[in-house]
Amino acid sequence: MGVSHAVPTGVQTGDPTGLHRVLEPAGVLPQAAVRLDTRRELWPDEVRIRVERLNLDAASFRQLARKHAEDGEAVRAEVLDIIATRGKMQNPETGSGGMLVGTVEEVGEESPLGLAVGDRVTTLVSLTLTPLVIEDGLSRWDGLSEQVPADGYAVLFGRSIAARIPDDLPAALSLSVMDVCGAPALTARVVGQYASTGSTAERPTVAVIGGAGKSGSLSLVAAKEAGAARTIGVVPNQEEADLLEASGVADSVTIADARDPVALSRAVARAGGPADVTVVCVDVPGCEGGAILATADRGTVIFFSMATSFSAAALGAEGLAADITMLVGNGYVPGHADYAMSLLRAHPGVRRLFERRL
Amino acid sequence: MGVSHAVPTGVQTGDPTGLHRVLEPAGVLPQAAVRLDTRRELWPDEVRIRVERLNLDAASFRQLARKHAEDGEAVRAEVLDIIATRGKMQNPETGSGGMLVGTVEEVGEESPLGLAVGDRVTTLVSLTLTPLVIEDGLSRWDGLSEQVPADGYAVLFGRSIAARIPDDLPAALSLSVMDVCGAPALTARVVGQYASTGSTAERPTVAVIGGAGKSGSLSLVAAKEAGAARTIGVVPNQEEADLLEASGVADSVTIADARDPVALSRAVARAGGPADVTVVCVDVPGCEGGAILATADRGTVIFFSMATSFSAAALGAEGLAADITMLVGNGYVPGHADYAMSLLRAHPGVRRLFERRL
Repeated sequence: MGVSHAVPTGVQTGDPTGLHRVLEPAGVLPQAAVRLDTRRELWPDEVRIRVERLNLDAASFRQLARKHAEDGEAVRAEVLDIIATRGKMQNPETGSGGMLVGTVEEVGEESPLGLAVGDRVTTLVSLTLTPLVIEDGLSRWDGLSEQVPADGYAVLFGRSIAARIPDDLPAALSLSVMDVCGAPALTARVVGQYASTGSTAERPTVAVIGGAGKSGSLSLVAAKEAGAARTIGVVPNQEEADLLEASGVADSVTIADARDPVALSRAVARAGGPADVTVVCVDVPGCEGGAILATADRGTVIFFSMATSFSAAALGAEGLAADITMLVGNGYVPGHADYAMSLLRAHPGVRRLFERRL
Repeated sequence: MGVSHAVPTGVQTGDPTGLHRVLEPAGVLPQAAVRLDTRRELWPDEVRIRVERLNLDAASFRQLARKHAEDGEAVRAEVLDIIATRGKMQNPETGSGGMLVGTVEEVGEESPLGLAVGDRVTTLVSLTLTPLVIEDGLSRWDGLSEQVPADGYAVLFGRSIAARIPDDLPAALSLSVMDVCGAPALTARVVGQYASTGSTAERPTVAVIGGAGKSGSLSLVAAKEAGAARTIGVVPNQEEADLLEASGVADSVTIADARDPVALSRAVARAGGPADVTVVCVDVPGCEGGAILATADRGTVIFFSMATSFSAAALGAEGLAADITMLVGNGYVPGHADYAMSLLRAHPGVRRLFERRL
């Protein structure tokens, strides 16, 4: 591991959140920073990764492609400029980043991440807070896809998260599972809290809105394993209903437009609802009212969609006098990546749904 | 109660959420509707209120006053036009409404709200979903304040919420308590879940960001009553610190800018943190990171601020690998208004903080 864990002299003490790498503005966390310090030398709890690939966030790539009228050269030039200027890949328009794949190059002696030199890993924290340097000018990338072959290095902090890429699965499949691995882990925790009384009467009914999608299908099997009495997959059309039914991932499948509160709650009721736990996994705005209405008194809604409106959820529940718990879907639960991988291995139906999307 | 509970013939069945009063677009909940049906005749589970006063939402009134350059006549004309056009008071720009005060005029025979003719009440559901008719042209209102003397009627649904105005407190004080009564009730529930093990070691430390405010001061005393080991009030400056200390409402008081994550988490730590439960009661954007960082592993953040960004909370926790539960502050918990009133009566320090703001 060399000696580069020595703290550069004259600089502040390291911090597990990466505060010591924030150049401006002072005092904010790395995600909110305009510019990060990308020096190669590691603080004692850091890890340096040799980068082989960036996966740009879909919304970020779409914005760049549109702005430059699909001119790949121009997109590549702007991505290089963003990374060089900010010391991280964070699209200033969308605020989003992506993730990266690489190999561990050096591990600071106080790193708590459990990684070893040579491990092939993917980061589970966003590129928006990861110090990054590109050394090949992205010369192997045509600027026309979110998948960016790259050579360079990135730095992980003490509180960062990275997962080893398993040997038994194609890398693209692993990455696509890791991208959504927070949802099944939190779903399992919430369902397990209901089910932990041991009484059959307490085993909850779980509805997953967007059940045929990546986070949705994983959440359905996670709910069942955690003790759900019944799982209901909600999908927008017959095609997805056929896919989800064929996968065997849900106890029942029902079709509804998630933006129509009455249609959604009636569909869930027909399928055995209301739900004790409703999991929102569709990235369209306006699903808050339907999720609230489909949920039983004293039940729980978990919002995983980034299209969720905080005020629509808060005011919507108040307006319906709905005594329910509403959770912001935290993408981090300890062990989430390994857990999601184990679900994929154990459930061929989930794997088929993922492979369709690769 | 007369006979007007008879369902108007030829119309659809009533629904506790008020769906039967939605004129357009079809299928949405009353809050999302463009226009509501304001007919006087009640469905069996409805209640009609004789309105004496509207309290417009502060953001809505500010927008109207600015738009019309403080011309009260023009503001009044627009409010009348909104109510006449939409059948409810929902500012199309801000999306917000307000609340109303009035007297129960008629109770449908299947109403579950427990109200009687003559009760003086305030609505705890928003004006954005309440059918409303103004009959006096708002002639007693100068258009220069959020407080709108009015004559007319409003309709409550089966799932609406209204609270009797207590006789022993000034009406303005009661209303200002009811406006924020969801926060102490949910805080008490969450703290009680931690404390319910009975072991002293499990009694949580609770930090309230914005502790000298209305929802903040009530949440501080609610947390203590529910079993908090220690309550910490966080305020932005010395003046509020002096006020909160003099009120005796918090076990300790600390000063920090809630938008500065590091400063906030250090201030909470100095005051006895990290917090097992952090309650965000300040209506400024950018407090998500600090609240997450100030909270202990496996702790809970409750976001009551309407300025909360869903994605900042979700991505912020993931970026910090923070294994915490994040709750959307649902404004409805059964019994919330009575509970908040009882806190105000029992804690003179809270009452003094409220009376300063009237």
